[in-house]
Amino acid sequence: MSPAPAPEFGPTIMQWAETLGAWSDSTSDLTCAYMTHAHRRTAAQLADWMRESGMDVHIDAVGNVVGRYRSDAPDARTLMTGSHYDTVRNGGKYDGRLGILLPIAVVRHLHRRGERLPFHFEIVGFAEEEGVRFKSTFLGSNAVTGRFDMALLDQLDASGVSMRAALQAAGHDVAQIPAIARDPAELLGFVEVHIEQGPVLLERGLALGVVTAIAGSSRYLVELTGLASHAGTTPMTMRRDAAVAASEIVLLVERRCAQGEALVGTVGQLQVPGGSVNVIPGVCHLSLDIRAADDAVRLAAVKDVLDGIAEICARRQVEFTLRPVVDAAAAPCAPWLMRQLGEALERAGLPRYDLLSGAGHDAMAMAAITDVAMLFTRCGNGGISHNPLETMTADDADIAAQVLLDFLRHFQPAV
Amino acid sequence: MSPAPAPEFGPTIMQWAETLGAWSDSTSDLTCAYMTHAHRRTAAQLADWMRESGMDVHIDAVGNVVGRYRSDAPDARTLMTGSHYDTVRNGGKYDGRLGILLPIAVVRHLHRRGERLPFHFEIVGFAEEEGVRFKSTFLGSNAVTGRFDMALLDQLDASGVSMRAALQAAGHDVAQIPAIARDPAELLGFVEVHIEQGPVLLERGLALGVVTAIAGSSRYLVELTGLASHAGTTPMTMRRDAAVAASEIVLLVERRCAQGEALVGTVGQLQVPGGSVNVIPGVCHLSLDIRAADDAVRLAAVKDVLDGIAEICARRQVEFTLRPVVDAAAAPCAPWLMRQLGEALERAGLPRYDLLSGAGHDAMAMAAITDVAMLFTRCGNGGISHNPLETMTADDADIAAQVLLDFLRHFQPAV
Repeated sequence: MSPAPAPEFGPTIMQWAETLGAWSDSTSDLTCAYMTHAHRRTAAQLADWMRESGMDVHIDAVGNVVGRYRSDAPDARTLMTGSHYDTVRNGGKYDGRLGILLPIAVVRHLHRRGERLPFHFEIVGFAEEEGVRFKSTFLGSNAVTGRFDMALLDQLDASGVSMRAALQAAGHDVAQIPAIARDPAELLGFVEVHIEQGPVLLERGLALGVVTAIAGSSRYLVELTGLASHAGTTPMTMRRDAAVAASEIVLLVERRCAQGEALVGTVGQLQVPGGSVNVIPGVCHLSLDIRAADDAVRLAAVKDVLDGIAEICARRQVEFTLRPVVDAAAAPCAPWLMRQLGEALERAGLPRYDLLSGAGHDAMAMAAITDVAMLFTRCGNGGISHNPLETMTADDADIAAQVLLDFLRHFQPAV
Repeated sequence: MSPAPAPEFGPTIMQWAETLGAWSDSTSDLTCAYMTHAHRRTAAQLADWMRESGMDVHIDAVGNVVGRYRSDAPDARTLMTGSHYDTVRNGGKYDGRLGILLPIAVVRHLHRRGERLPFHFEIVGFAEEEGVRFKSTFLGSNAVTGRFDMALLDQLDASGVSMRAALQAAGHDVAQIPAIARDPAELLGFVEVHIEQGPVLLERGLALGVVTAIAGSSRYLVELTGLASHAGTTPMTMRRDAAVAASEIVLLVERRCAQGEALVGTVGQLQVPGGSVNVIPGVCHLSLDIRAADDAVRLAAVKDVLDGIAEICARRQVEFTLRPVVDAAAAPCAPWLMRQLGEALERAGLPRYDLLSGAGHDAMAMAAITDVAMLFTRCGNGGISHNPLETMTADDADIAAQVLLDFLRHFQPAV
């Protein structure tokens, strides 16, 4: 076993994450939603750090911060890395951001040593992955793969501001979005570093893991319409209560998704808009998120839940609309990239440990145009994420950066 | 059977309700919450109509619009009527307002004829009954009975504005609120006209009914705190999902309150604050409203629901707080007033039909200081209320006004 490397990257990465964590849409927590002031400030800071690390930098028309560490090699192709810099509401400091900051620290190290790579190395800070503001995810990585849906520009946020207006207010030319699409022939692959956001590595006492696949994901927004009426005068048997129907759906999702391997189901949004204590809910909105490692397992659960929604609503005389917002197949990681990540782990004296990603990641979108792999870092506090309690150690950040550096130095393109 | 009186009051009352219905906090529906611009505009209009009808008028320190049709009799005491002019969100035009507009029309008729009554007749447009803005009900009638809780002045609305600030911005001197309290010795009773807000009179083909009692009511605001975490990476068995716990509670309320006579239970507010599709809800807020004609039936249901909340939350490792906001005993109406209302109905050729009020009304608060009674008018559209579909006919408004006028002309104080 080789001696542990002296900490070098860890404190820098942790400090940068703190700096970014201070810019928020909220005064009480970390919320960095697409194209808000905090979001644009974060992008500008990432661009600064990339430039200081010797990269060519631009912010593209959807807000991705793109830093390119150029190779001197003739005909060099590009290995990409990166993750997202937006957050969920009341989110953590490392989710997404780690996968931008960690490679910047590695490039800074290469740049200071004057060390070049035999390929272009590009870090993308994806502008949007979480779907908080416009209820649509992977805006940044979908633009890079040429799959950005221009119809989304008319999507409105909760205040009625369109995505188009938000981008224009930030100085972006939305007509340039299609031109963000990358040519797959120029790409060597995409390797994303991300905090695990779950308890597996923590429970096994491991700093790092190699992702085998990203779970597939189905998401819907559901709107239930019953009949608002007086809470005191409408007998229990004569009600068409949208919130009671929603509650049955929430419990159905929980029950059905407990019955499958590597299957999870969540109702993350649940709301009676403008509800009053003394009014039977006429409307209830909820979201549905069902994921599984196996697409057949996921689709069977989705079918049962949607059938159940139809049954519940028919029985309760509640109307429903279903809007599908995500239907993403499970994305397997490329074995040749996984092997090279595993070799770098083993050279650092760590075991190669493979695990599934239950969360979606930008790598899932990038898999549409190039081979992908992911390196997971251990998540503290029981594996909690999408929460301010999300944490990791500087030591883990450090060893992950050492492994990524070693991976880059040994990188061999697929044959 | 006496001939039907020629319509006279009906069209006026309906037109006034339309006029008030046009002033709303919302551009798309009728919402008139406490001390908003629309609310103050409504109060000013009521005061104008009262003055034009020969009444002495003032708006008191909580916003009640008080009109007094003075008697010439020496040592006259006061018979009161009235109802509330605030509405629920997306409410109806007659709920509350009918009980102000209808007696104004009656007084206008007396005033035009120069006809005086042997007692002072006072109409109060109560400023607040529904609890929409500050989650506390009966602000207007509680002030009149001397039971206004001054601690409520620090209550904040959803925008963080305190009730005190809202009142001060409207030019009210909150220090004067205690002085609103009326001396019970000066009062003859309180008779409230109100739309039924339920289907009973409609189903029986009756224009009017005499209320026997107002159901008692228990209300709570419940806050559930689980653990927000990542929807993709947290196994179903390791979750502490506040929305799933809330859903179990909603279904418990429905199930339990179906098991009792004249018992209803409603969760009108249900919300995961700032919920995201991909985050397990860490917090969920809900309201609880349980009512029954019989206090023992109500309290037994409340106990079972609260016990159930404790059991559900313990099993799911979700913490909860319960804030009681209403605990109102059932209020019986005074038989002597019911009898005189019934006699007026019969003189108009209508049967006396007695029914329970499932809804709370200002009369419930007024019962603390004087004998009360209520006259219900038929509610159209299947009895729907707290909804823009709430409706009634001009003919029903007319006959109700004729009955109230006749009741006043024959009124005999309790001995």
